[in-house]
Amino acid sequence: MEKNVRIIEVKRSIFENNDRDADRLRAELKEKKVFLLNLMSSPGSGKTTMLLALSRALKGRVRMGVMEADIDSAVDAEKLMEAGIRSIQIHTGGMCHLDADMTRQGLYEFGLEDAELIVLENVGNLVCPAEFDTGAVKNMTLLSVPEGDDKPLKYPLMYEKCDLLAVSKTDVLSYFDFDKDKVEKYARQRNPDIHIIYISAKTGEGMEELADWIVKQVKDWKA
Amino acid sequence: MEKNVRIIEVKRSIFENNDRDADRLRAELKEKKVFLLNLMSSPGSGKTTMLLALSRALKGRVRMGVMEADIDSAVDAEKLMEAGIRSIQIHTGGMCHLDADMTRQGLYEFGLEDAELIVLENVGNLVCPAEFDTGAVKNMTLLSVPEGDDKPLKYPLMYEKCDLLAVSKTDVLSYFDFDKDKVEKYARQRNPDIHIIYISAKTGEGMEELADWIVKQVKDWKA
Repeated sequence: MEKNVRIIEVKRSIFENNDRDADRLRAELKEKKVFLLNLMSSPGSGKTTMLLALSRALKGRVRMGVMEADIDSAVDAEKLMEAGIRSIQIHTGGMCHLDADMTRQGLYEFGLEDAELIVLENVGNLVCPAEFDTGAVKNMTLLSVPEGDDKPLKYPLMYEKCDLLAVSKTDVLSYFDFDKDKVEKYARQRNPDIHIIYISAKTGEGMEELADWIVKQVKDWKA
Repeated sequence: MEKNVRIIEVKRSIFENNDRDADRLRAELKEKKVFLLNLMSSPGSGKTTMLLALSRALKGRVRMGVMEADIDSAVDAEKLMEAGIRSIQIHTGGMCHLDADMTRQGLYEFGLEDAELIVLENVGNLVCPAEFDTGAVKNMTLLSVPEGDDKPLKYPLMYEKCDLLAVSKTDVLSYFDFDKDKVEKYARQRNPDIHIIYISAKTGEGMEELADWIVKQVKDWKA
């Protein structure tokens, strides 16, 4: 294992048509049988902690690697590396999102050989990342219980774009005003097809269900 | 009191130099003796709940009004209006931030007559709002305990730009791994002059201290 996290400074895309470039990237991934999952959320929703628990739940089923995208710092990639998860850190140069070409730069440095599932942990932000197709096969958003059940009302595009909503930190449900019926209603108003799973990286609740969902997506993609 | 929340759809600024426009807006506010506070945070840090508690703590000291900025929905402005707080809802047309001219459009609709303190509740986002000077006299950020103590490492500009950091939801401190010493160290790495207050809108902890800080800023500005 490497001693230091590899940090990639990605450059702003030169492609004018990001949607077309994202489709091109998906085709490349399809050919190489690599599944890319775009993980989005607010800052502090628990993306990295969830990935640590997910890695344990996926053990022996699917090989997972992680590309951590951040404005600055490498704290997340370091945590994953310490847990033995193959990971690199992407710095966006102050930018609030990744487009398909920035994602490709990261994938190229990560290396697609021997990769099966790569999770892109996008910049913590509910607005900008939803506006740019990264080329991922599926999009997932985390909403942590402390953030409140009204987020789908305020950040519509994020919920429209996501295939999976994982409601995280369910272990603290009793300390917060968070209504499961409301969040499901609001999320489905934005996206009737969204799949919803409740998880806690702390207690392990829902982690098997999440792992099953991901394994199925990866298998379907490689088929 | 109005029955329905007034919703303002602001337009993208026509000014090329936002910094100069922001200085111009501050000069206008100085002349009218109106204090504008720019409030930023992640989605779900508790900005609106904090404002409800702050309004009670400021009663009889300073008149507070609120401009709520969101991508969509008017749920926050409605909550404030129900509590008798003068407020309007600004919709950004999908944009992740407000610049000085967008803020001016909101202020113009809000009305500066009889206003003393206006809080701009910016879009929930730790990246983009920090990049645009809104013309506010002071900048404040909320960081809620569940988000974790590492946020100043990951979102440097937000902490560089803020005069005040209020760590919110301290009532749940014992349920989360959150180290006060760490957050203070990281925040001061970004901004040695940042003022830090711990608050809980639920228990009332720190709300008087926060009100005192704001009253002092408003008085200094009007002097």
